[in-house]
Amino acid sequence: MFTHDTILRVRYGETDRMGYVYYGDYAEYFEVGRVEALRALGFPYKRLEEEGVMLPVHELQVTYHRPALYDDRLTIRTIIEKVPAVRIDFRYEVRNELDELLTEARTILVFVDRSTGRPCRAPDDLVRALGGYFN
Amino acid sequence: MFTHDTILRVRYGETDRMGYVYYGDYAEYFEVGRVEALRALGFPYKRLEEEGVMLPVHELQVTYHRPALYDDRLTIRTIIEKVPAVRIDFRYEVRNELDELLTEARTILVFVDRSTGRPCRAPDDLVRALGGYFN
Amino acid sequence: MFTHDTILRVRYGETDRMGYVYYGDYAEYFEVGRVEALRALGFPYKRLEEEGVMLPVHELQVTYHRPALYDDRLTIRTIIEKVPAVRIDFRYEVRNELDELLTEARTILVFVDRSTGRPCRAPDDLVRALGGYFN
Amino acid sequence: MFTHDTILRVRYGETDRMGYVYYGDYAEYFEVGRVEALRALGFPYKRLEEEGVMLPVHELQVTYHRPALYDDRLTIRTIIEKVPAVRIDFRYEVRNELDELLTEARTILVFVDRSTGRPCRAPDDLVRALGGYFN
Repeated sequence: MFTHDTILRVRYGETDRMGYVYYGDYAEYFEVGRVEALRALGFPYKRLEEEGVMLPVHELQVTYHRPALYDDRLTIRTIIEKVPAVRIDFRYEVRNELDELLTEARTILVFVDRSTGRPCRAPDDLVRALGGYFN
Repeated sequence: MFTHDTILRVRYGETDRMGYVYYGDYAEYFEVGRVEALRALGFPYKRLEEEGVMLPVHELQVTYHRPALYDDRLTIRTIIEKVPAVRIDFRYEVRNELDELLTEARTILVFVDRSTGRPCRAPDDLVRALGGYFN
Repeated sequence: MFTHDTILRVRYGETDRMGYVYYGDYAEYFEVGRVEALRALGFPYKRLEEEGVMLPVHELQVTYHRPALYDDRLTIRTIIEKVPAVRIDFRYEVRNELDELLTEARTILVFVDRSTGRPCRAPDDLVRALGGYFN
Repeated sequence: MFTHDTILRVRYGETDRMGYVYYGDYAEYFEVGRVEALRALGFPYKRLEEEGVMLPVHELQVTYHRPALYDDRLTIRTIIEKVPAVRIDFRYEVRNELDELLTEARTILVFVDRSTGRPCRAPDDLVRALGGYFN
C-alpha cells in the first residue's frame, strides 16, 4: 500500500453560499492528491503526458461526511492499494486540522496511449516503483 | 419515475488541456439538472433554502464513458426513481448532440433543517408533487 | 456597434459564502457572452480554432456594482464597438431580472495563428460580417 | 510598500484546451495571494469576516503577458502600495519558475460592515500594522 499526504487550504472561491466547499470542487483536491502522490513516486503527471500517456478519469465516487469550510487547512491522503495495470485506482481521505474525516473518495483512471487513443498498460517504471510497496 | 431534460453548452473554461470537460465540472452540470428538475416540479431550490431547508450532497458517483468536448450541446437527463424521505436520490445521464451517452451519475442529497442543522423529512408538498409520478 | 444579449442562470457552485457570485466566475459569463455574440454573427469560436486561429485574452477589466445572487437569471449584453484588426475588444454589461446593472467589463483578445504562435489579423469574413454594423 | 510572495502550483482543472490556465482562474490565484498577504500581516481574512467585516471585490484589472501552463510552480507577488481607508488596493505579479512575468493585476476591495451592508473604514489594527511599511 502506498500512502501520500498533501496539504492544501480551502479558497474562498471554492465555498458556496452554505459556507461549505462546493461538492464539485473536491475533484480538484483529489487531483492534487494523486498528482503529488505520483510526483513523490518520481512520476510527475506532466511527464507521463509528455511521453504520450494520458490518464483520464473513468469513475469517481465521493462520500461527504462533513463539510470543509473556508480557510480550512486540509490533509488529502491519497492511497494506492494495488499495482496498476491498464487502470490505476486511487483512494482519498480528506481531513481537517482537528483530524476529522470530512470526505472519502475513490477514482479509477485509465492509461491511454495518446497516439492511438486506446487503453494501454501502465508504464513499466511506474509499476516497478510501486511494486516495492506491495511486497 | 420522474424524468427531466435540461440542455446546456460546454464552456471553454470547463475544458482542460486534453480538450475534454474536466471531470470535476460535471458536478455543476448535475446540479443544473436537478435544480431544473425541481423547478419543473414547482420547487425552485432557492425557495427550499428560503424556507429553511438545505440539501447538501452526501454521495456522488460518476462514470465517464466518453469525453464531452468544447461547445458540445449537452442534454442532462435527471431522473428521480423514488419518493424522497429524508434523502432524495437523483440519477443523471449526459448525452451529446449525436445522442451518445457520455456520462452517468447518481447523487444522494439529504434534507437538513437549517435551524437545527439536523436531517429532516422532505417537504410534504414536494412529496405530494412527486407522488403522482410513482403510481 | 454590434450588440448581443445572452441569458444565463447563476449556478450554486458559482456562489461563495457571502452568497454572491464569486468575482472570478464572471469571466465565464463574459466568455459565454462573446462566444454567443460571435455565433450570432456566424462565427462559432470553435470553428475559428479549427481554422487555426486562437483568441487568447490579453486584458480583462471588471467593475462590480452589485452582487449577482444564486439562481438569478442574468442578461449578459456583449458589445463590439469597432471592427477588429489584430485584436478584438468586447464590452459587457450584466443585468439581473430587475434590470439592475450588476457588472461592467471589457476584454481585449488577440488573434493568434496557431501554426506560428504569432498575432495575426482577424479573419476577413469576420471583419466583413461586422463591417455592416459600423456604417 | 508591503510585499508578500505566495507559491502555488497550476492544477489540471485550471487549464483549458489551449493548454493555458483559463483567464478566469487567475482570480483565485490573486485571492490566495492577498489572503496570504493579510495572514502574514496578522489578519486572516476569515477573522475579518468573523468580526463582521466583509471585503467584496469592486474592481479587477488583469493583463495577461504569457500563459501559465499545467504544473507550473507560480509565484504570486502581492503588493500593497498605500494604507487602506474604506478600500484596499492590491497589485499582483505572477511569475513562473524561469522568473518570467506572466500576469499583472490590480484589485480594489471595499470594507463593508456586514450588519449594515454599508462601506466602513478598514479595521484600526490593520491600518496600524500596515502603517509601519509606509514610513
